[in-house]
Amino acid sequence: MRVSELGEFGLIELVQQWTRAGADSPNSPATQPYRLSVPNGDDAAAITFLNGPVTELYTTDTMVDGIHFTAATTPWRDLGWKAIASNISDVAAMGGEPATALITLGLPPETLVADIRELYAGMIEICDEYDARIIGGDMVRSPVAFITVALTGIATGEPMVRSAAAPGHLVAVSGPVGGSAGGLRQLLANRLGETPGNSDLAKQHRRPLPHVSAGKALVSAGVGCAMDVSDGLADDLGKLCAASRVAATIFADQVPTITALSNAFPDDWLDLALYGGEDYVLLFTAPGDIMDVAIAELPAGATVIGEITDGEPGSVTILDASGRVMHRSASGWDHFAD
Amino acid sequence: MRVSELGEFGLIELVQQWTRAGADSPNSPATQPYRLSVPNGDDAAAITFLNGPVTELYTTDTMVDGIHFTAATTPWRDLGWKAIASNISDVAAMGGEPATALITLGLPPETLVADIRELYAGMIEICDEYDARIIGGDMVRSPVAFITVALTGIATGEPMVRSAAAPGHLVAVSGPVGGSAGGLRQLLANRLGETPGNSDLAKQHRRPLPHVSAGKALVSAGVGCAMDVSDGLADDLGKLCAASRVAATIFADQVPTITALSNAFPDDWLDLALYGGEDYVLLFTAPGDIMDVAIAELPAGATVIGEITDGEPGSVTILDASGRVMHRSASGWDHFAD
Repeated sequence: MRVSELGEFGLIELVQQWTRAGADSPNSPATQPYRLSVPNGDDAAAITFLNGPVTELYTTDTMVDGIHFTAATTPWRDLGWKAIASNISDVAAMGGEPATALITLGLPPETLVADIRELYAGMIEICDEYDARIIGGDMVRSPVAFITVALTGIATGEPMVRSAAAPGHLVAVSGPVGGSAGGLRQLLANRLGETPGNSDLAKQHRRPLPHVSAGKALVSAGVGCAMDVSDGLADDLGKLCAASRVAATIFADQVPTITALSNAFPDDWLDLALYGGEDYVLLFTAPGDIMDVAIAELPAGATVIGEITDGEPGSVTILDASGRVMHRSASGWDHFAD
Repeated sequence: MRVSELGEFGLIELVQQWTRAGADSPNSPATQPYRLSVPNGDDAAAITFLNGPVTELYTTDTMVDGIHFTAATTPWRDLGWKAIASNISDVAAMGGEPATALITLGLPPETLVADIRELYAGMIEICDEYDARIIGGDMVRSPVAFITVALTGIATGEPMVRSAAAPGHLVAVSGPVGGSAGGLRQLLANRLGETPGNSDLAKQHRRPLPHVSAGKALVSAGVGCAMDVSDGLADDLGKLCAASRVAATIFADQVPTITALSNAFPDDWLDLALYGGEDYVLLFTAPGDIMDVAIAELPAGATVIGEITDGEPGSVTILDASGRVMHRSASGWDHFAD
């Protein structure tokens, strides 16, 4: 079987099985000065050091030229920002703060050094903004440009995980969704690539702001279940539900978006909001009383969009304003699908 | 200017300047519960947690299909072993033990799932052997296969660095060199790729054994300066000398190799030993008294091959058995050179 037939998420599931068996092998655990507090399969893995109060988070994310970005829609400086942003968002989803980054670049020999300078300028900008630092990396020749960021974070509270949703929990997001996908669509249509795309939507695509403060506030409020929205709200909620062995219902008319999205895409805004991706807001669930506290404490608030239910694990039902079931118009983007 | 004109090491130097400036920016340090004890530019970066005795090491290394490996000389299972081995070797060079690994795979959609199973089997084998575990990663579509490993390690002593060599130090290696390069040459010549290459040299190429115990013993013995030999002994010693602002002289007839190397390559063995790469032994320097203690404590011994001198920083002079200067027959492999 080929990777394209199995699909990205099928392959990830297999790898998790293989590596978990490895992690349980007799050699591995016990004698170490840390324990694996969150294993492979969440936004980040977490290690808790046994002789200190620190939980360290580890995550990594890769962008490949022509697959995850193109020079036409993402200038190098924005690419640097985004490559780090997606990793910071994973750490935020666990309630942590970013700490250190290793940067790996695969570069064709003809790449301009000036472009790499821009790339690092964007990475350093977001690191300064979020109190992270680049401490190392690797640089290799490659026929296709790619950038891999491995980021550590520090959590002082209990990391939030995807597997803690329970029937009766409310479902909320910490900010509007769909803006990044709308911005990408504008950039592709308008060929804004050569000059800065300054629309509100283009900015959301190019300079996403991971919700680190929100993640910390959620942990303080007692929220235990969260993930970041990177592959589209509906798809990511499906993953959270699968990890928690529950189902969810969301109310389409409650899904928050920015006005610019519905103005620019009066017919497609909901589709972009539900299936767009790269939003980097936090998706979380909690019982009603904790949700009330959490929303009050969040720096920019949050919006309840649905609830967790019993039902086919991983299934997400979308209801319109009159309570009728809406059918998915598109499936999430599978990285290996043809 | 293009990356190919600047070269890999020129680009790495620039990136170190850019990111160090970033790390010193007002936002970054101070409030964090750790300090950067070894910055970008060594085998691994090191973070020391302020409220605990643990120093954590971070390193990353990437292999790209057609650049760093080919299916003809490296079956998937060996590729998995090697991808982790090069990272463990970086941690060993600081005197640490490996802990956790994040694995990123870039894969063409037509990749066979069975091959990825083999790749992970090799990674899990070496992780079991060295007490490390795979805790996460990322999986992306890419026109070219690549594998990036980000590895953490734990050091209980002071990490060894490249910048601590001083004139008068002796220079030693913790094992024979050139075997991996000899094995690769055999594999390329004999097309052993389809069946296991079982010669002693091929094994050194396919299943290198990073010197973790040696690294720890060196720290215990008081050695402060080390790096691993991954790009060839002469080149790596040049880097160590550049980082320490010193020069070195090595005695060609003292350089240790396995007998199979000189048997298989009676004319080229010294060239392979000095410039071959992927040896993953440790190269270290120390004053004579500490060197005596260190060699006695090393599980498999070590060989003194030369000494650190004043002189042009980074320059390495190679003397033959009669004390005459030998001239370099090849330069180290620059990843971006044409």
